[in-house]
Amino acid sequence: MPHFSDRLAEVVRRKGPLCVGLDPRWESVPKELRDRFGPDGLGEAYAAFGEAVLELVEPHCGIVKPQAAFFEAAGEAGDRALRRLIDVARSQYGLLTILDAKRGDIASTATAYAQSAFDGYGADALTVNPYLGADAVEPFISAARAATPKRGLFVLVRTSNPGGGLFQNLVCNGRPLYRIVGEEVAKWNDGAIGDCGLGDVGTVVGATNPKEMAELRSALPKVWFLVPGYGAQGGTAADVRSAFLPNGLGAIVNSSRGVTFPFHPDDPNWREKIATAAERACAELDSGVRAP
Amino acid sequence: MPHFSDRLAEVVRRKGPLCVGLDPRWESVPKELRDRFGPDGLGEAYAAFGEAVLELVEPHCGIVKPQAAFFEAAGEAGDRALRRLIDVARSQYGLLTILDAKRGDIASTATAYAQSAFDGYGADALTVNPYLGADAVEPFISAARAATPKRGLFVLVRTSNPGGGLFQNLVCNGRPLYRIVGEEVAKWNDGAIGDCGLGDVGTVVGATNPKEMAELRSALPKVWFLVPGYGAQGGTAADVRSAFLPNGLGAIVNSSRGVTFPFHPDDPNWREKIATAAERACAELDSGVRAP
Repeated sequence: MPHFSDRLAEVVRRKGPLCVGLDPRWESVPKELRDRFGPDGLGEAYAAFGEAVLELVEPHCGIVKPQAAFFEAAGEAGDRALRRLIDVARSQYGLLTILDAKRGDIASTATAYAQSAFDGYGADALTVNPYLGADAVEPFISAARAATPKRGLFVLVRTSNPGGGLFQNLVCNGRPLYRIVGEEVAKWNDGAIGDCGLGDVGTVVGATNPKEMAELRSALPKVWFLVPGYGAQGGTAADVRSAFLPNGLGAIVNSSRGVTFPFHPDDPNWREKIATAAERACAELDSGVRAP
Repeated sequence: MPHFSDRLAEVVRRKGPLCVGLDPRWESVPKELRDRFGPDGLGEAYAAFGEAVLELVEPHCGIVKPQAAFFEAAGEAGDRALRRLIDVARSQYGLLTILDAKRGDIASTATAYAQSAFDGYGADALTVNPYLGADAVEPFISAARAATPKRGLFVLVRTSNPGGGLFQNLVCNGRPLYRIVGEEVAKWNDGAIGDCGLGDVGTVVGATNPKEMAELRSALPKVWFLVPGYGAQGGTAADVRSAFLPNGLGAIVNSSRGVTFPFHPDDPNWREKIATAAERACAELDSGVRAP
């Protein structure tokens, strides 16, 4: 059974490191769809918009990352939309799916979250918050390794928000907290290294902190980086270069708004604009990352 | 419009500090309900069991805390059960509800989670993970203060799981991380202090760390403590005493399994056992906490 890390490596080799984030917001969804479904059809509009996005970005990316919060905020129909989009992404387009839910809880509860993410929603990977410690992350790792096909995790290490350093940059025993968390992730990750040389417990490291990213890259040579903050949040292709290994693997770079909402809601040509934005982001990352 | 903190104080004065956690698990639900709903009726069984629990514990507690993970793991019907139980708890029994979802994300996403928790699920309070920093917690605070009625938050500070200290106890600038996070919470909390002298941004501090709890209590005199880990996780009424202020306010103590599953699934007298367990926990906390 293929290792999660090797499935991810295969996709990145074939389509590049772009990951498209699905963060639907009612006010940004094309007017055409808002008119069709109306404010009571929020979840249905998210499903229709999301399916269009999947079809448009699929030629240019191999990974999508739905953000659980926006679907949850759309109530029961939003939850149905999330389940449908993960299913369509995987079964219709062969995309890898990362459920961005940043879960974290004591062991028995973590087991329920893992079951929900992998068996319920069917996601290929899940983002996890490390604050509760190793015994709270362990159930996610066990569940990911026991699932068919095998799944992966991305643990928050250094996040992309402006105030992410408040606690993450505190210096403990001479090293910043993000570094200590990162090295803990590396130990968990060592438990299952794939043929590509990388493991199944990745980290989240924001594109908005290039220096810390470079430091973490050399400290964690076998760990996948999921890099948010590219595009709308301000990170450039040059900023993310240091997240990659010399062989072009090691990182996937997420863009949400930049790829999925590059249009005014009234614009009837939103489909073309999404396709163009995805193509451009893919090319930009390709040249930015492979450039010396 | 009453302050969240004063609503909580009123409930604790009237009914004591017991909070009953709703963490439904299929294998623990009474056989009677499993037989009635069958394995395809997981969510419906959780709703029926939860409604019975609410009716049975209501005379002995004023707060319930549904754990989002277990409902999420039961799929769409589980989500419906969660929405229904929060509604029944509030409208039928006047209970305060804490949605235990430990959310945390960058600002725009945090806003969506807050909207979902307060407007969508209708919960009176939400648990939040602090790892992303102040700008990630701020949207939860704004949403809680803007809602009608006003809502509250409980931010993870020192969790009850055995390995909770891995990162939380790291010493940064001479103080443990949990203490630094706690003092940050106290600053946020200072933004809205109620008539009872306490604020609307509480902390989660496990009953399994009595020494740290006592330290945090004196450092954070205006902050509500939500104390998990009492009962099944090993904490006793004596262990939680230091979480309280001299006036008997300042803390609520959660028991999940100890109150909601004090029976073998085959036991037809599960209703009596839940009522007895709730009554006992209420009395134990009352005497344990008020004892000198």
